[in-house]
Amino acid sequence: MDSIFPVIWFEDRVRLIDQTRLPNEYTFVDVRLSSDMAEAIRTMIVRGAPAIGVAAAFGIVLGSREYTGDQGDKTAFLAHLETVAAELRQTRPTAVNLFWAIAKMLEAAKGHSGSIPKIQEDLLKTAQSIATEDVETCRAIGGHGLRVLPPTPEKLRILTHCNAGALATAGYGTALGVIRSAWGSDRLERVYADETRPRMQGAKLTTWECVQEGIPVTLIADTMAAHCMQQGLIDAVVVGADRIARNGDTANKIGTYSVALAAQAHGIPFYVAAPVSTIDFKLGSGVEIPIEERNPQEIYQVGFSRICPAGVDFYNPAFDVTPAHLITGIITEHGAFSPGELASGLGEMNLIQD
Amino acid sequence: MDSIFPVIWFEDRVRLIDQTRLPNEYTFVDVRLSSDMAEAIRTMIVRGAPAIGVAAAFGIVLGSREYTGDQGDKTAFLAHLETVAAELRQTRPTAVNLFWAIAKMLEAAKGHSGSIPKIQEDLLKTAQSIATEDVETCRAIGGHGLRVLPPTPEKLRILTHCNAGALATAGYGTALGVIRSAWGSDRLERVYADETRPRMQGAKLTTWECVQEGIPVTLIADTMAAHCMQQGLIDAVVVGADRIARNGDTANKIGTYSVALAAQAHGIPFYVAAPVSTIDFKLGSGVEIPIEERNPQEIYQVGFSRICPAGVDFYNPAFDVTPAHLITGIITEHGAFSPGELASGLGEMNLIQD
Repeated sequence: MDSIFPVIWFEDRVRLIDQTRLPNEYTFVDVRLSSDMAEAIRTMIVRGAPAIGVAAAFGIVLGSREYTGDQGDKTAFLAHLETVAAELRQTRPTAVNLFWAIAKMLEAAKGHSGSIPKIQEDLLKTAQSIATEDVETCRAIGGHGLRVLPPTPEKLRILTHCNAGALATAGYGTALGVIRSAWGSDRLERVYADETRPRMQGAKLTTWECVQEGIPVTLIADTMAAHCMQQGLIDAVVVGADRIARNGDTANKIGTYSVALAAQAHGIPFYVAAPVSTIDFKLGSGVEIPIEERNPQEIYQVGFSRICPAGVDFYNPAFDVTPAHLITGIITEHGAFSPGELASGLGEMNLIQD
Repeated sequence: MDSIFPVIWFEDRVRLIDQTRLPNEYTFVDVRLSSDMAEAIRTMIVRGAPAIGVAAAFGIVLGSREYTGDQGDKTAFLAHLETVAAELRQTRPTAVNLFWAIAKMLEAAKGHSGSIPKIQEDLLKTAQSIATEDVETCRAIGGHGLRVLPPTPEKLRILTHCNAGALATAGYGTALGVIRSAWGSDRLERVYADETRPRMQGAKLTTWECVQEGIPVTLIADTMAAHCMQQGLIDAVVVGADRIARNGDTANKIGTYSVALAAQAHGIPFYVAAPVSTIDFKLGSGVEIPIEERNPQEIYQVGFSRICPAGVDFYNPAFDVTPAHLITGIITEHGAFSPGELASGLGEMNLIQD
């Protein structure tokens, strides 16, 4: 399980697992230009909120090396970095980790007193530490998650939506981190994976991660989650997040909201597992979270054929917002909080920033 | 809109629209043997609860002509019909219309005082009257539906799941009958069609029917229905049914239950449109309804490729049960009823049979 790292620095470039080709091909894409990194994020070669944060950080590293101006002009260098950052920011609007990681990289550059070559060198270190810390964060989330999962039954059947696994982070995963942690502690019977239309990340990525580790996994269509709950097959739901507002409202992959409604109807605990970098303390509630709308081809093109006739309209929102009242707990690297405790709980740790 | 008839008698055979090839090809399959009709129902060349009832009735007609015994031995003839009926009954377990139509055909044969050739002739008339009445029933459902739809806004945005259209009946449709009726009366702005995984009847069939008539239709993935409601895009939900218990609990295509939960969470009226033949008065509640489980290939095989790795388990229930408390009204050819009124309302019409 420690071998799945979707974003790593390799010699002078970034090596991404090509997530658009899984599970049929396990291949890599080497990225050498910041603009190619923007494209890789946009086309979802790399996806998942924490993973695109890490990828964007490395994109800033690549961009810093594309500076061709006066090596003594730090103002020009920083202006160049802002241009690179602007391109990376325009790739995907919903996951806040993207903006968080870019901001952290720019701060490191701006606050640096050394030469441009030294800044370039240290930016790589900063990006690498973002990646390393993300894996540690995921492990901490796994540990806290294990403590808040229902005490009975002894072996849980956990439903998850989309992929919030190693592939969606620098490694280990958030929701799948909790699931890995439960599996490692003999608290897991089986994962139920929603296929997660339109892009099928549950079918293609979550099941692949589970199979790699021998975790029993049942794939269902998204239409089946509520029925599985009604049949008593699900003990808990754990999902990731792309952005969490201060009140606990959580944007995550489209379809998460349906799962949360069904969980509530059946009294099944519904957990969000995410690093603190996913929390956008500037937003009071989920209605302020921008929701990405993607190409309708993701809906109408299945395999090589079009599933519907000409003349049909489409709507393809990539995320939805699950209101805080449907969320049992938000599991972060600093512990699990009910949505109402989130701001005060983490605020006491001086984590709330403007 | 009067040109879509998925099951018709043509000369000496049954002509089915091949629903597995829509929307890319509009072709027909001619069925001459009762065993081929069983296979057509099993493989969903014809599907939709009322349509498979009509198809099974014609299957009995075909089977009656396969009798090769003594032309004077009515007992042997009726035993032969029972064998044909048994094969047809084993095709799909959930839709009660299948069993209802077969029972009606057998009753017509058993109660007949004429010769075997005359019974064979009259069985065709009975099957044809089941088909004709089904279209009339759908038109009546459309009319009653129009009266119970919300009075505001003037033009409604109606979400539907799966296909309960002309293709799912002898013609006109149940849920889509209500929608056609609303469109014809200038009460409809747009249909939102859930794609309805795994078999995509919403994407393939419902959008196709809408396009045939110029009804504006937006195709969404099943994961998007709750989000559309949260965004205020949906004024009402209308779905079909495969079997309705006496208390109003309704089995319909997998995913209907999720939609009903989301509709309730948003205060959006949720209607079931179905002929009385869909109501199984023998069943006290939905837990008694048998739920068909289909081949997992429907989940893992998308186009020509497998969407998940080897080693994954599957669960593929074809239907789910929406509890009566989530249903605003059940729209039948005899009027619309709240689930609680169903038994008494229809019972007063002496429609309840043992």
